[in-house]
Amino acid sequence: MTFNEARALVRDVDDAIAIDTQRRLDRLTKPQASLGRLEELAVQYCTMTGERKPAVPRGVVFTFAADHGVVDEGVSAYPRDVTAQMVMNFLRGGAGVNVLARHTGVDVRVVDIGVAHEFEPIAGLISRKLMKGTHNMAHEPAMSEATAEHAVMVGADLAAEAAREGIGLIGTGDMGIGNTTASAAITAAMTRSDVNHVTGQGTGIDEQGRRRKVEVIERALARHQPDPRNAMDVLAKVGGLEIAGMAGLILGAAAARVPVVLDGFIAGAAALIACGVQPRCRQYLIASHRSVERGHQVILQNLGLRPLFDLELRLGEGTGACLGMGLVQAAVKILTEMATFAEAGVSERSA
Amino acid sequence: MTFNEARALVRDVDDAIAIDTQRRLDRLTKPQASLGRLEELAVQYCTMTGERKPAVPRGVVFTFAADHGVVDEGVSAYPRDVTAQMVMNFLRGGAGVNVLARHTGVDVRVVDIGVAHEFEPIAGLISRKLMKGTHNMAHEPAMSEATAEHAVMVGADLAAEAAREGIGLIGTGDMGIGNTTASAAITAAMTRSDVNHVTGQGTGIDEQGRRRKVEVIERALARHQPDPRNAMDVLAKVGGLEIAGMAGLILGAAAARVPVVLDGFIAGAAALIACGVQPRCRQYLIASHRSVERGHQVILQNLGLRPLFDLELRLGEGTGACLGMGLVQAAVKILTEMATFAEAGVSERSA
Repeated sequence: MTFNEARALVRDVDDAIAIDTQRRLDRLTKPQASLGRLEELAVQYCTMTGERKPAVPRGVVFTFAADHGVVDEGVSAYPRDVTAQMVMNFLRGGAGVNVLARHTGVDVRVVDIGVAHEFEPIAGLISRKLMKGTHNMAHEPAMSEATAEHAVMVGADLAAEAAREGIGLIGTGDMGIGNTTASAAITAAMTRSDVNHVTGQGTGIDEQGRRRKVEVIERALARHQPDPRNAMDVLAKVGGLEIAGMAGLILGAAAARVPVVLDGFIAGAAALIACGVQPRCRQYLIASHRSVERGHQVILQNLGLRPLFDLELRLGEGTGACLGMGLVQAAVKILTEMATFAEAGVSERSA
Repeated sequence: MTFNEARALVRDVDDAIAIDTQRRLDRLTKPQASLGRLEELAVQYCTMTGERKPAVPRGVVFTFAADHGVVDEGVSAYPRDVTAQMVMNFLRGGAGVNVLARHTGVDVRVVDIGVAHEFEPIAGLISRKLMKGTHNMAHEPAMSEATAEHAVMVGADLAAEAAREGIGLIGTGDMGIGNTTASAAITAAMTRSDVNHVTGQGTGIDEQGRRRKVEVIERALARHQPDPRNAMDVLAKVGGLEIAGMAGLILGAAAARVPVVLDGFIAGAAALIACGVQPRCRQYLIASHRSVERGHQVILQNLGLRPLFDLELRLGEGTGACLGMGLVQAAVKILTEMATFAEAGVSERSA
């Protein structure tokens, strides 16, 4: 699959199915619409997949890991080594995303798309390293346009492969020290927002650190002048490899009609890129949670997405996506496992 | 166990454990507090149970079913028969609560505490019927004080029994056509709120029906003058048997240091009663969701509870509680299954 093929494959969701699905939901033993957003989710799932009687989907969260040259500017509270160390933690099952994925019964697939560390061959690691971390956007573009496109296709191919395996639900995850800086830069560029307004504390820098981060991003944007009408230009100049991978994952999933459950801020930046590349991707997105990162709200508004919950998460990795995938599975079960009024012999409401 | 014994058994939660638990959470491989409310939940769970290294709790949602004499006033969109029909639906596993309980791996126990129907002996139904529905509060007190106390003890004994079985997490569920009317009456009385302000559309009456409901409640409160400083007086005069059962469930669970996950509005009315009877019950409550029913927000504020999510649910049965119990289990797993920085060899933040 080429980049342009992936882009061309994304079709509109099937709105006609929404009517049938809501009709089915209205026959179930509950007051109409009384399961609120779970019912909405069930309807969305059906319009996205084109299925009228869906099975409960098997879910996979893809956690893309990469490093960021911009960490040299002192934008993160953690050293760069943590990216590689956390990859090992993911593979051993000890990270937050592992715990929550097991909890909701989804698999975690860990992708090295640009970690600044040479891993020994390890079972479970999907090796797709394109660079040992991006270049420092403060001085040069984070990556070439060719690399950006290559990284997007890494994600798109992984999604296509998962769809062929019968995976029915994909979650986005990320690991990359410095990636809230890249995400804030993307968000500012793509939504034409003030950098200060979309730049948060990341893993936990103080206000002074945050101001430095804002300055670094402002300088990078001033230097590279990324074009918001060209998402790939923005991605290459101020993005990250894991963000590119997630953007591709969204594109590939949408092309295969597999619903995508977004995690938080970094996933949101990837969604901005994916929707810039192909606006129809938007129709396949489910926002799991509203992150503590202030820029996330700007992304959600820009994309017109309403998150399912707000648990004040700011970990990333796909942790929020795992919980969101659990809700999607719950919604599908409501649609397919509840008895109808007729089946249960329950009286309907008085006229 | 007598009513006074249950009341005397409720102790303050163990705040000293909060410090140890947060210390453990801060050693896990994630930025501090980055799992937000999941971390708070883990801390709460430990202070409630007194456990420092809790196992993932087995959960049970108790769905109490009862009828309401006030339905004769035309306050509900559904006929009274639906209560008994839904009990059968619960026992066959076809209702919303069954689907969501299976989804999160908790059991549903169905208690007939006052359904206006004689059930044949049926496997799975816990028969504790005290009346065939309450009296019509528009004309007389819903039940005697003795019956109210008896109903509370049904719930308290079920919680105590569950605790002895090793159940570590209890959810509240309800079924009773007319029970949003009783709950609004309790809420207005206990929180000294305007009836109109706390009375919603229930299963789906129109605005005219809602105004009638408000008038019926206002009349009942004017006639019986329930005393908000005496929760049992309020419960007996304008309550419901399932609400009494849930209030007792909360009391019995708190006495046994088992955390209680509340469902929505009806559960909230029961919580007002339980906390009126024994204010320390409040410390054992976790609010799962914010319901669409307008009175629920007033209850949450009165009790100082912050719900975990808002999915615009208004079904009851314990549906929201099931999802909330899943989050509590997730929080316990975060605490006990994640690797620490030391275990995973991950660098901590720069000083």
